[in-house]
Amino acid sequence: MKIAILGYGNLGRGVECAVRENSDMELVAVFTRRDPKDVKIRTEGVPVVRVEDIEAWKDKVDVLILCGGSATDLPGQTPQYAKFFHVVDSFDTHAKIPAHFAAVDAAAKATNHVAVISVGWDPGLFSLARVYANAVLPNGKEYTFWGRGVSQGHSDAIRRIAGVKDAKQYTIPVVKALAAVRRGDNPELTTREKHTRECFVVLEEGADAAKVEKEIKEMPNYFADYDTTVHFITEEELKASHSGLAHGGFVIRTGATGLHGEHKHAIEYSLKLDSNPEFTTSVLLAYARAAYRLAQEGVAGCKTVLDIAPAYLSPLSAEELRAKLL
Amino acid sequence: MKIAILGYGNLGRGVECAVRENSDMELVAVFTRRDPKDVKIRTEGVPVVRVEDIEAWKDKVDVLILCGGSATDLPGQTPQYAKFFHVVDSFDTHAKIPAHFAAVDAAAKATNHVAVISVGWDPGLFSLARVYANAVLPNGKEYTFWGRGVSQGHSDAIRRIAGVKDAKQYTIPVVKALAAVRRGDNPELTTREKHTRECFVVLEEGADAAKVEKEIKEMPNYFADYDTTVHFITEEELKASHSGLAHGGFVIRTGATGLHGEHKHAIEYSLKLDSNPEFTTSVLLAYARAAYRLAQEGVAGCKTVLDIAPAYLSPLSAEELRAKLL
Repeated sequence: MKIAILGYGNLGRGVECAVRENSDMELVAVFTRRDPKDVKIRTEGVPVVRVEDIEAWKDKVDVLILCGGSATDLPGQTPQYAKFFHVVDSFDTHAKIPAHFAAVDAAAKATNHVAVISVGWDPGLFSLARVYANAVLPNGKEYTFWGRGVSQGHSDAIRRIAGVKDAKQYTIPVVKALAAVRRGDNPELTTREKHTRECFVVLEEGADAAKVEKEIKEMPNYFADYDTTVHFITEEELKASHSGLAHGGFVIRTGATGLHGEHKHAIEYSLKLDSNPEFTTSVLLAYARAAYRLAQEGVAGCKTVLDIAPAYLSPLSAEELRAKLL
Repeated sequence: MKIAILGYGNLGRGVECAVRENSDMELVAVFTRRDPKDVKIRTEGVPVVRVEDIEAWKDKVDVLILCGGSATDLPGQTPQYAKFFHVVDSFDTHAKIPAHFAAVDAAAKATNHVAVISVGWDPGLFSLARVYANAVLPNGKEYTFWGRGVSQGHSDAIRRIAGVKDAKQYTIPVVKALAAVRRGDNPELTTREKHTRECFVVLEEGADAAKVEKEIKEMPNYFADYDTTVHFITEEELKASHSGLAHGGFVIRTGATGLHGEHKHAIEYSLKLDSNPEFTTSVLLAYARAAYRLAQEGVAGCKTVLDIAPAYLSPLSAEELRAKLL
């Protein structure tokens, strides 16, 4: 399977690493909006190509992995490149998925391509956990917790405050809430009761710490509904102790069965990740394999993880899967 | 969706309860090998029918749930009834799945039916967890732990020993092994290091406890490779404290990504179940929905959970799933 990357940031570098772990895949090109001379990749012999020249590669690539961001890149890129390639993206703005799906589906169907959107862990593996658990325990309630991990969006929001030089924000699930959910208490949890937010902030020289802290804690949507802790640290400390991209989380559904709901059950799916982007791209590649196979079967259009049978993700044959992993 | 049950034991009763939680399903018949007069079901207005008369129902049932055992019932029943109905079974003898699949596939294809086999939690939801985790983290290692829960097969094995009146056996994962796996130590674990076995045994009057204990602990395959504890208790105590059917377990895969495997990740899927048969039948019904929909699309043949896209299990439409659960 010939894999190409569009966008060589954290996700692009993750794809580059993950391809090496999949013996049925090879990286054939990295497309970039930058000057290719400025992009140093870590795989010998693979060309870095200006995105303007991408169409010339349409018969030399089996699946193109779109490694842009959800805010401004993917809404345009995924429908655009689904005209030339089978594509996989990690579009993760939950509220905008229906609109993105419609745009990508139209483009992919018109040109007979397969496009798999919203792949990763949430949306992605966590969506799978939610759908399976919902179907199996209809009489139940389910919860998603994120963290402990770095939220890029919240870190960016802090960085936009005047007087802030740099910042990292951790999303942390509340242990007491997690325990109540696991016990099957079915609690009604407010936003504040589910997660806390911890911020590590480097100030510009002369900035007013108290003012910055107040601005963070009162920021609507991002922090106002949470118990937020702010630590002011030096730039060196931020680099030394907070440059990781670890993340994770939990999807838990508890429910009851029996004539009178007398038996309780808990289904829990959890991830503990050293590198959010590298794990995300590992999922992208598994779905690249699925996209390629679906295309070979004559399927076209937009798909999500919910539309794809698990066997398509594995390099093993159906017979091997039944014998070894079922 | 019109659901029927074949076999009114623990699983059959579980299906009967679970149907009530699924508003798109109704129970239309219970088929039994016993005299229907002797089978008291808990749903008013649903007929209990001799299995000899089952063929007459072939146009009145959408999906037949086969609730027999894997040892002697399902190898014959599933291919036989796939001739008349779309069927779902919980065949769980891992080593014999390929042969069962072949027999059921031939019968189902010949008569244009969908048959979903080996549905439940292991095989079933645990198989899904293994396949997804394998595809996503190819450079890794995965472990399945069962328990704490009652093993029917091991309890039966003890009951067959001379001098034993009744017995219950619990399979228990070794906490230290679980912790090492979760830490990402990638331990090579022997059978003995993964699970212990705890037995509660009621003796016949005059039986030799030491002799029974020795016979249990040395029984090949079942107990010889495990650290086994045997407790002798009264019949009353067994009934009072050990009549539950709780079970559960863990599928954990740890793996590495990065250019030099420098980032570690852990994927964990776990179940904690008050009632093994009721949870199993909840899974069976979700796949009954899938079987019905696949049949409506013109699909025929034998399928496993690995061949079926998650969206087929949910009563929600594709649009609702994308908007709410993705």
